[in-house]
Amino acid sequence: MKLYEGKAKILETTDNKDVLIQLFKDDLTAFNAEKKDNREGKGALNNQTSSILFEYLQKEGIKTHFIKVIDNTKMMVQKVSIFKIEVVLRNVAAGSIVKRIGIQNGTTINPAILEFYYKDDALGDPLINQDHIRFLNLAKSEELEEISVIALKVNDLLKSFFIKRDLILVDLKLEFGRNTRGEILLADEISADTCRLWDAKTRESLDKDIFREDKGDVLTGYREVLKRLKTKR
Amino acid sequence: MKLYEGKAKILETTDNKDVLIQLFKDDLTAFNAEKKDNREGKGALNNQTSSILFEYLQKEGIKTHFIKVIDNTKMMVQKVSIFKIEVVLRNVAAGSIVKRIGIQNGTTINPAILEFYYKDDALGDPLINQDHIRFLNLAKSEELEEISVIALKVNDLLKSFFIKRDLILVDLKLEFGRNTRGEILLADEISADTCRLWDAKTRESLDKDIFREDKGDVLTGYREVLKRLKTKR
Repeated sequence: MKLYEGKAKILETTDNKDVLIQLFKDDLTAFNAEKKDNREGKGALNNQTSSILFEYLQKEGIKTHFIKVIDNTKMMVQKVSIFKIEVVLRNVAAGSIVKRIGIQNGTTINPAILEFYYKDDALGDPLINQDHIRFLNLAKSEELEEISVIALKVNDLLKSFFIKRDLILVDLKLEFGRNTRGEILLADEISADTCRLWDAKTRESLDKDIFREDKGDVLTGYREVLKRLKTKR
Repeated sequence: MKLYEGKAKILETTDNKDVLIQLFKDDLTAFNAEKKDNREGKGALNNQTSSILFEYLQKEGIKTHFIKVIDNTKMMVQKVSIFKIEVVLRNVAAGSIVKRIGIQNGTTINPAILEFYYKDDALGDPLINQDHIRFLNLAKSEELEEISVIALKVNDLLKSFFIKRDLILVDLKLEFGRNTRGEILLADEISADTCRLWDAKTRESLDKDIFREDKGDVLTGYREVLKRLKTKR
C-alpha cells in the first residue's frame, strides 16, 4: 500500500510495520519542482547508485535505513520518521552558495560547510539555523548535534570514496530519520539527484545540474557515475 | 576628517586615533536602500535614543563603543574594526522571519532566535551560519561565541528595559567591533532604525516599519520611543 509519494520516490508498506519499500520514480524535478521531466531509467539508476552508497556507508559504520535491494527500482528500507531538515555539506562552491555569499563557482571549501534547510516545499526549503530548528521543533538540540556529526562523517567517507573513482563530491544533501527503536538513521537516497558530482579531470557535471542547467543528457551523467561505482567496488 | 559614510551615519576622525565622532544622518533607507527618504530630525532622535541605550547597557556591564554625547546628532565613540556580521535577535516574529519559516506575524519567540547576516549590501545581507562565517573569515569561532553571548545578554537587558516603558522589543540588529586594545565592543547604534519596537498595549509599530510599510509619520514613532526612554530613566 502506498504510504507516501514524493517528487522522486514512493514509499510502500509491507507486512512488517517497521519495514517499507522505497520505489525510485523516473520523474526529475528542479528548482522546487518548477522544472520537471520524466526520463525512463532514471529511477533505476538512482536506486542502484543509492544502494551501493548505502552499503558502503553501512560497512563503514554509518547507520542507514537501507536493508537490501529488491529489484531495479526498489529497495527495502527501515521505516523512519523523517526530520524535516535537509542537511547540506559543501566541499566545493556550486549552486545557491555562490550567490548567497558571493564566492566563485568551483572554489574549494575545506573544512566543509554544513547547512540546514527547512524541508518545506511551500516555503522553498529556506536556509535555517539551530535556533530556527529549536523554535520550529524540527529536532532536539542533542539530535541535531548527532545528525551533524554523522553528516560530517558521511561527507568525509563519500568524498574519499568518490575521488578514488575520479569523482569530486562537490556537495550533497542528506536526510535523517528516527526508526521505531529510536535510532537516528541516514535515510532518503544518495545519488546524482542529491549530490553534485564532477569528473575529477574535466570538472564536468555528472549530476542533476545537467538537467537544471540544460547541459546535455542527464542520464549519460548518472550512468557514468554508476559505471564508476560498479567498476571499482 | 570623514573616515566613512554609511547609509545612516558618518564616522569622523579626531585628534585621538582611538576615538571617532559618529554623526547620525537624517537619511532613512529600507529594503537594502531600495526605499529612501530624508526626514529632518531623524538623526538627532537616533543619536539621543542610542546614547540612552548605550549608557544603560554600559551601566549593566556591557562594553560598548559609546563614550559620550557631543551634540544633537553626534556622539563620541571608540574606534573599532567592525565585524562584517549583523547579529539579529528575535523575540516576536516580524519582518523576514515570517516568510522564511512560515510563522504568523506577532508570534512570541522565547527563547529568542539569534541569527547572523553577512553585512554585504551587494549580496543583500544574506542569512549565514557559523560555517559560512568561518569560511569567509568574518570572525574566529571564539569571537563568534563571545559575540553571541553578549548579544543574548543585550537582548535580555533591553527587553526588560523596554517593557518597563510599555515597549515590546520585537527584534533588534546589533553590530560588534574590536577596538585597538583587542576588546570586543557593541558598536553601531541601537535605535528605532535598528530595533522593532511595538507599543505594549496597541502593538502598533513605533519603529522603521512605519517607514517600510507606509504606516504613518515615522518620526512620530521615533519621538514616542525617545519620550518614553526620557520620562523614565
